[in-house]
Amino acid sequence: MQRGKFITFEGSEGCGKSTQIARFVSALQDQGLEVIQTREPGGTVVGEKIRDLLQFDPETADLCDESELLLFAASRAQLVRNVIEPALVAGKWVVADRFLDSTAVYQGVGRGLDLTAVKAINGFAVGETIPDLTILLDLDVAVGHSRALAASQGKQDRMESQPLAFFELVRKGYLDLAQTEPDRIAVIDASKSIDEVTATIADEFERRIGKVHT
Amino acid sequence: MQRGKFITFEGSEGCGKSTQIARFVSALQDQGLEVIQTREPGGTVVGEKIRDLLQFDPETADLCDESELLLFAASRAQLVRNVIEPALVAGKWVVADRFLDSTAVYQGVGRGLDLTAVKAINGFAVGETIPDLTILLDLDVAVGHSRALAASQGKQDRMESQPLAFFELVRKGYLDLAQTEPDRIAVIDASKSIDEVTATIADEFERRIGKVHT
Repeated sequence: MQRGKFITFEGSEGCGKSTQIARFVSALQDQGLEVIQTREPGGTVVGEKIRDLLQFDPETADLCDESELLLFAASRAQLVRNVIEPALVAGKWVVADRFLDSTAVYQGVGRGLDLTAVKAINGFAVGETIPDLTILLDLDVAVGHSRALAASQGKQDRMESQPLAFFELVRKGYLDLAQTEPDRIAVIDASKSIDEVTATIADEFERRIGKVHT
Repeated sequence: MQRGKFITFEGSEGCGKSTQIARFVSALQDQGLEVIQTREPGGTVVGEKIRDLLQFDPETADLCDESELLLFAASRAQLVRNVIEPALVAGKWVVADRFLDSTAVYQGVGRGLDLTAVKAINGFAVGETIPDLTILLDLDVAVGHSRALAASQGKQDRMESQPLAFFELVRKGYLDLAQTEPDRIAVIDASKSIDEVTATIADEFERRIGKVHT
């Protein structure tokens, strides 16, 4: 049994990640692949509890940055061992909505935490399960923010309610990361139309991973 | 305002930790000190939710070792920043039922995780907030286990239901740690009577921390 491929999608708010993931997964399925989709935090019993705690629990609004990062990592550690790795071993493909780069960028760069510690924690959480390809949807922060505001209809989670300067740091963090790992991370211009972005992702995918053989 | 002292209690199941902590705190209070007591995981809103998740949630019985450790660390990071450090700065004393040594020993040594990563995660979680004194209640594993079984009346949490070999590793892990940090960690023979153990703790405390001046 050939090991499946592991593809992650990253990007800041309003970048169109959910739409593009749905199209990407659908295209893989049309080629006969069995695809598992994951989201972070969440995707396991423990992970979904952590997700609730991180995102919409008013009692945890005073969560410190270090605890936030460790909770994301705890959710991911469980997801890797219970869902992602078993699926890959069974020859399935896994498409993840956020993975370790989100932690490096949102918590590490955005919150100004010690990047060496963040890297050690990320490595501990995911082990050897590194994405084969990461699609980074890059977008001007102000554009992304107004898109996200329109979509959320006023209901913002912990992350979305951060100031714009935070998202500027996040964007720069992502782009810096892409420069250090150009073989894994493909930067996609997300300011284009939905169809154009879908086409660019498909091109990058074929160029980097190749044709899918089922 | 003089910074308060931070005292932690460690030890495996059945070592009499709760009883000795209650007596120790009471003795400090009798000398006019304001004392904050903490327990791990827990002690904050987030921490108590993590505690529920770690200990008695039947849905999370398949929690992986890495996630378990990260959840303990997340609870501790929040406790340090919201409770322990502010109390110490305000001149209060803090007495903790378990702290970073528990993670090093139960998760690191007991679960066989990478000790370098465990150390990095512990450091990230607690920052500069290291105990002034750690009381390690040391006890033969079989004796501790039968004491704990009698006390729990059959209701065991995730940790208590581990095999005896796990607790042998934990005991050895604690003793090894005490050898590497003899100035901070006092090993107390917990096989003696409750009163004798209390007296030994008081002696060690006075020898290492000195008389309390309020």
